[in-house]
Amino acid sequence: MVSYTLAELARHAGLEVRGDTGRSVEGVGTLASAGPRQLGFLANPRYRRELAGTAAGALVLRAEDVEHWHGDALIARDPYSAFARIAALFEPRETAVPGIQPGAVIAPDARIDPAASIGPHVSIGARSRVAAGARIGPGCVIGEDCDVGEDCELVARVTLVCRVRLGPRVRIHPGAVLGADGFGLAMHEGHWIKVPQLGGVRIGADCEIGANTTIDRGALDDTVLEEDVRLDNQIQIGHNATIGAHTAMAGCVAVAGSAKIGRYCLIGGAAGIAGHIEIADKVVVQAMSLVTHSIRESGTYGSSIPAREARAWRRTLARLNRLDRTVD
Amino acid sequence: MVSYTLAELARHAGLEVRGDTGRSVEGVGTLASAGPRQLGFLANPRYRRELAGTAAGALVLRAEDVEHWHGDALIARDPYSAFARIAALFEPRETAVPGIQPGAVIAPDARIDPAASIGPHVSIGARSRVAAGARIGPGCVIGEDCDVGEDCELVARVTLVCRVRLGPRVRIHPGAVLGADGFGLAMHEGHWIKVPQLGGVRIGADCEIGANTTIDRGALDDTVLEEDVRLDNQIQIGHNATIGAHTAMAGCVAVAGSAKIGRYCLIGGAAGIAGHIEIADKVVVQAMSLVTHSIRESGTYGSSIPAREARAWRRTLARLNRLDRTVD
Amino acid sequence: MVSYTLAELARHAGLEVRGDTGRSVEGVGTLASAGPRQLGFLANPRYRRELAGTAAGALVLRAEDVEHWHGDALIARDPYSAFARIAALFEPRETAVPGIQPGAVIAPDARIDPAASIGPHVSIGARSRVAAGARIGPGCVIGEDCDVGEDCELVARVTLVCRVRLGPRVRIHPGAVLGADGFGLAMHEGHWIKVPQLGGVRIGADCEIGANTTIDRGALDDTVLEEDVRLDNQIQIGHNATIGAHTAMAGCVAVAGSAKIGRYCLIGGAAGIAGHIEIADKVVVQAMSLVTHSIRESGTYGSSIPAREARAWRRTLARLNRLDRTVD
Repeated sequence: MVSYTLAELARHAGLEVRGDTGRSVEGVGTLASAGPRQLGFLANPRYRRELAGTAAGALVLRAEDVEHWHGDALIARDPYSAFARIAALFEPRETAVPGIQPGAVIAPDARIDPAASIGPHVSIGARSRVAAGARIGPGCVIGEDCDVGEDCELVARVTLVCRVRLGPRVRIHPGAVLGADGFGLAMHEGHWIKVPQLGGVRIGADCEIGANTTIDRGALDDTVLEEDVRLDNQIQIGHNATIGAHTAMAGCVAVAGSAKIGRYCLIGGAAGIAGHIEIADKVVVQAMSLVTHSIRESGTYGSSIPAREARAWRRTLARLNRLDRTVD
Repeated sequence: MVSYTLAELARHAGLEVRGDTGRSVEGVGTLASAGPRQLGFLANPRYRRELAGTAAGALVLRAEDVEHWHGDALIARDPYSAFARIAALFEPRETAVPGIQPGAVIAPDARIDPAASIGPHVSIGARSRVAAGARIGPGCVIGEDCDVGEDCELVARVTLVCRVRLGPRVRIHPGAVLGADGFGLAMHEGHWIKVPQLGGVRIGADCEIGANTTIDRGALDDTVLEEDVRLDNQIQIGHNATIGAHTAMAGCVAVAGSAKIGRYCLIGGAAGIAGHIEIADKVVVQAMSLVTHSIRESGTYGSSIPAREARAWRRTLARLNRLDRTVD
Repeated sequence: MVSYTLAELARHAGLEVRGDTGRSVEGVGTLASAGPRQLGFLANPRYRRELAGTAAGALVLRAEDVEHWHGDALIARDPYSAFARIAALFEPRETAVPGIQPGAVIAPDARIDPAASIGPHVSIGARSRVAAGARIGPGCVIGEDCDVGEDCELVARVTLVCRVRLGPRVRIHPGAVLGADGFGLAMHEGHWIKVPQLGGVRIGADCEIGANTTIDRGALDDTVLEEDVRLDNQIQIGHNATIGAHTAMAGCVAVAGSAKIGRYCLIGGAAGIAGHIEIADKVVVQAMSLVTHSIRESGTYGSSIPAREARAWRRTLARLNRLDRTVD
């Protein structure tokens, strides 16, 4: 079992200790669940009244909250981020052994760094490369002409279809599919014909991609995620979209083809972004909203409607639908 | 070919026969498709006029509908549920042979019951357990510290990432991912840092989880589905959510982190539930509605808008957007 | 490196050349990215001003645009479709070797045509068939009683659960799941019971199914896609739905059970289609709209709301919710 003193934790996260610097911490928890050998945290002042009941051995909190707590403490300007850095010390780590597990199927001209770890039931196609420190978990499929950067982690059952290039430290969760054909169709004599998808996918350093998320490859140019983009689960990114650095999206967002999203944006769950539009830096889109036009200025945007009791909502809808019949 | 008499079916499902108790039934079908050796059913009175045209050999129906049908019948208070129990007798069953298929990769300290069935291309990680009668289909990945209960079925290509515990008789469809990292991020000096996800996922007895559905593991505590929860395909359950017993969700629902949903709720397709809210027992949420606040009373709630002809809808939208400029 | 003369390309796509018929083309690109040995195209007149800056060696464009371009050209009535057919000539092709890769697990009574190609880590269940020219990529799972038609391509990690029948030339992208249990439940004494799903899935010729899309099998009859249906990623098709020929759906659409959608429909991204309704031929549904009632006439339908600045939208919402309290 790992354990750290408060002094060690303070040094690790750049914090100040109040109380017993030698107190030993063996894990982390919520205010409600942490015990006397664990560290809790208070980030949101709304939960301040829970301080009285917590059994946590010590807490991470803001200077302005410290008067409400009589135990040992680590003082942080941003307790949530400090807690995240401390919690990482207690995270159990799977031991990835470098080398190729028996049963993996690797193309003869693929290049696997000896310091990469290739799990069971993996296949890797022609001309693809896996860099040092990368971990390719069980059941992953890497197609042709892909490039997996240093210290990437493909947790399990990830697919890189073709021409997918991952920068260093990209983490991809199970079921994600990168580099599948973009959805390009042309109608010809009453029948669809497929528009070839000749581009690829480029993922910048430190990106994280959630479970069952899909990122199609571009039609002619690439689909691009700049560095440190964070995508939750079940997100769909259409071909030739570009997502700016440090943008984060909650689950189930749909981004249509050739959309260009700025840096440091926050896209709420199940929001939709239309194709061929541009969104400026630092734009917040609320959950389940639909962006149909370019957004030129940072700010918060939305179009979703909070649910109400169904009969009341039905009455509102009836009035709404009558609006276009009333005289202006 | 299996066949049952009406008397046998009546006994199995606790029903009453009208007519020839010895009539032999070899399968089930709809009113439109069932033939003379098959059993049909009438659950919804709207379809009563189809009785005249059906070729079904016998029907399951309510006592109040029986006068409209002159053939043999099984009388049920709830024909749909009775039909479901009867149809199960005719369901073809794959034969799962206990044991571990060659090519499966099992950690040395994983414990697999000899009466479990482990399919081809499966991998099972350190310290995980699979109980008797469980069936792990082709291509499933079970990570570290997971627990698969008795008679569970992981159909194929299911991933349990880590710290996932399944009660007995849980059924999980292909592509589902349980126990991936919850989406926890903190901004630190202009760059995201990952909040470690130290919790797990607990799934109660008799739950069913649809294809490509994702259930993330908790940040500090667990994400929880109580018993008999039924999730359709492509549902996203965020970390630390709790879903009460017997709740059912249609496809594509998105539940954000730390939401707490009651028992016997029905959540319509593609609905969204915001994070950190509570929903009471027996709440119905309509399709594509967004719940942003806690719901304290059972009842039906919604916020979705039925599609209309596009020009009419555009006029309504124009009026709607002008509402906030009119004097109140 | 492949290369074609303009004369060869014109012959291939049925076009007319203006300028140097012997000019050699080695690839395709956008107006912005194409170089002197590449072919660009102008389909949308909005981009006409980009003609001045392009470095493309030749262009595909309409007769009415040709006066704006002084270089070599291929004249097309539909430049986008012509370009698609030409781009296909430059698409790199993976070489699929017929035969069964070592490590694939095939049921003894499955029938695999010797001219089919079965990739690594594939499993194929009892009584299933794979026709000549079909390519089953790495990690695919084909269950029992499935039928894969000639020249189908299952790119990688596709699952056909059971009773799935694919016509010729069907292409399915990674993570798609066809033939999982439809979502059928009946409440019985306070507990859900499962309604057996005895039907299958039938997919017509030339259909394309996107990554992580799910198509459930029918309860009693089949779920059906007619020929040339094109589904993007992360679409959910409920049991017993029917999709008419040549209909295309953008990503994240949800179609509930027993919906019947016509031919040549276009369904926008993340739209929802309720169960048990019918949609006529040639209906366009806008993105994120919800169709709750049958649509009898072709045309365009919608109910989505474009996002606005959040405070303005909140004011509108407040007015909207007050509508049902105002006197009519």
